[in-house]
Amino acid sequence: MSDTFRAAQARSDAIEQQMAENPASLRMLTGDRPTGALHIGHYFGSIRNRLRLQDSGAEIWQLIADYQVITDREVGGDIAGNVRNLLLDNIAAGLDPDRATIFTHSSVPALNQLMLPFLSLVSVAELQRNPTVKDEAKSAGITSIGGLLLTYPVHQAADILFCKANVVPVGRDQLPHLEQTRVVARRFNDRYSPVFPEPGALLSEAPLILGTDGTKMSKSKGNVVELRMSADETAKKLKGAKTDSDRVITYDPDTRPEVANLLTLIALCEGIEPTVVAEEIGDGGGGALKSRLTEAINTELAPLRARRAELEADPSYLTDVLKRGNARANEVAEATLDEVRAAMGMVYL
Amino acid sequence: MSDTFRAAQARSDAIEQQMAENPASLRMLTGDRPTGALHIGHYFGSIRNRLRLQDSGAEIWQLIADYQVITDREVGGDIAGNVRNLLLDNIAAGLDPDRATIFTHSSVPALNQLMLPFLSLVSVAELQRNPTVKDEAKSAGITSIGGLLLTYPVHQAADILFCKANVVPVGRDQLPHLEQTRVVARRFNDRYSPVFPEPGALLSEAPLILGTDGTKMSKSKGNVVELRMSADETAKKLKGAKTDSDRVITYDPDTRPEVANLLTLIALCEGIEPTVVAEEIGDGGGGALKSRLTEAINTELAPLRARRAELEADPSYLTDVLKRGNARANEVAEATLDEVRAAMGMVYL
Repeated sequence: MSDTFRAAQARSDAIEQQMAENPASLRMLTGDRPTGALHIGHYFGSIRNRLRLQDSGAEIWQLIADYQVITDREVGGDIAGNVRNLLLDNIAAGLDPDRATIFTHSSVPALNQLMLPFLSLVSVAELQRNPTVKDEAKSAGITSIGGLLLTYPVHQAADILFCKANVVPVGRDQLPHLEQTRVVARRFNDRYSPVFPEPGALLSEAPLILGTDGTKMSKSKGNVVELRMSADETAKKLKGAKTDSDRVITYDPDTRPEVANLLTLIALCEGIEPTVVAEEIGDGGGGALKSRLTEAINTELAPLRARRAELEADPSYLTDVLKRGNARANEVAEATLDEVRAAMGMVYL
Repeated sequence: MSDTFRAAQARSDAIEQQMAENPASLRMLTGDRPTGALHIGHYFGSIRNRLRLQDSGAEIWQLIADYQVITDREVGGDIAGNVRNLLLDNIAAGLDPDRATIFTHSSVPALNQLMLPFLSLVSVAELQRNPTVKDEAKSAGITSIGGLLLTYPVHQAADILFCKANVVPVGRDQLPHLEQTRVVARRFNDRYSPVFPEPGALLSEAPLILGTDGTKMSKSKGNVVELRMSADETAKKLKGAKTDSDRVITYDPDTRPEVANLLTLIALCEGIEPTVVAEEIGDGGGGALKSRLTEAINTELAPLRARRAELEADPSYLTDVLKRGNARANEVAEATLDEVRAAMGMVYL
């Protein structure tokens, strides 16, 4: 464990405590790329963590990162449809538009303008060392890194700092980006005058969840259960999940990763330990395991799916949520940009 | 001469013709960095070319590139004072605020937002190959290239394309930047839908002018005559100009570069050939050469300096000019950004 990670973990622990003692002092920024509908990996990996922060009383800023879609692909596909999916999925899951500000990147020019001063605070060598950028390029099969991918950590700094968020829920793999944001905030404050907080990560405690084929979840591999699927679609998808030939179900992540993954999902839905689930299934085999998982997920997601159907029936509500969110994001971004201009001596009128 | 340069020269010639035949079809974007007051190098190198375009009837967009100040230095110094100097110098020289839109970078968020989609259209390798970026880093003594310097050609594409300028007056050294803008426009149009023109360079025909010490003009070397100097200050500065010990004045750029440089300046002011000036001075020596140059420059700049003094006495006029320019730039930038969002499928409301 590196010193950087240890320090990040200590800050994350402190944020947990702050959430318990003084949640109103927390302002969270989080976001999704509108590349498709959300699935159970997002649900257990991040959405539950966000809702925990929201329900504690923290202030919530929820970004729909449309410009980020074109960091690792040429064109964005059905971005408008996917923005709508993110609105539906998040609100159906419990994100409260009356408490959270939900907004799209491309609608907030003053936020995007922060890229300019922030780019002056980082070196190209620093950007090229960012391990997350390297990994993302590699996993997208990109050999020629584009300007938007290289500078994406700086844009992310603008996302987080424009609203002066002090907490960002992230997985461990995203830590280098958040470190870059902290560096940008620190350098700006040192070089000009103190404008930005240095945000801390709220590290997710959720275990890594794999796709139904035992590999990394990916919509393009068809190995995910989307939140929006019907109970029947979910059953069908899970029927095809990979298990093994041993009829006795045991929780052994090292030697039986696929079975362990399904047990973990049941455990997350039911709020019990995966070993207990395994004992209960005993020699029921893969069939019993999948039946129980289907039941657990459909039960967990039933209220979300019902709410989603209601929301789908009222498109003007979604439009209104995004309109209000974008208006609020613009207002706050313009105020921050004014502070930045003043700090940099760029006030002429 | 490279193919790229030949093609640029051909476009420049075509623009000259267009200026004569249909000037209203030309929209020019040009700009200065607010790093100090303008000097006679700017005056003969670019301002006279801009005014030629303005007076032909072309539409003029005049950028004060405040964010560009921090591409090659950490902080901007007295940016507000220098913005004021650029307003004074340009308007005093003849830029007409009723015909030209004069605006500051940092005041136009929708322009700056164009950085994001444009960055997705260029590769890091491409940016690193840009010879002007390399040269600028080298001449500023920078070993670690910053994010803003590397991406500056993309920001410049946003400057030029937000108002759909189709002509940019540049020196030959700035051609690689303009080529990058043309590439950005072309790729955007190909990938999404046709939104942008591919602007052409209007190549300056002005000869290279050196400082009073015979080296490259640079405010920090104290070898420049600023437009705002008084006649006495100009005389004093030129008295210290470097010449040589040969009393007979001849125009010989190769063997007598300093003398040739002063003759060129006189020639530019008086509208005659430097060889003619040399003959007229004959064996008057460096003293006569400098006297004539002082007279020529002070005569050339006298109306400008008088107008500058008037403008300085009315600060609210300058404020109003910039306010109107920024309002107009924002209006046009927002309209272009709307087109860009629509072309990219990023319309949700």
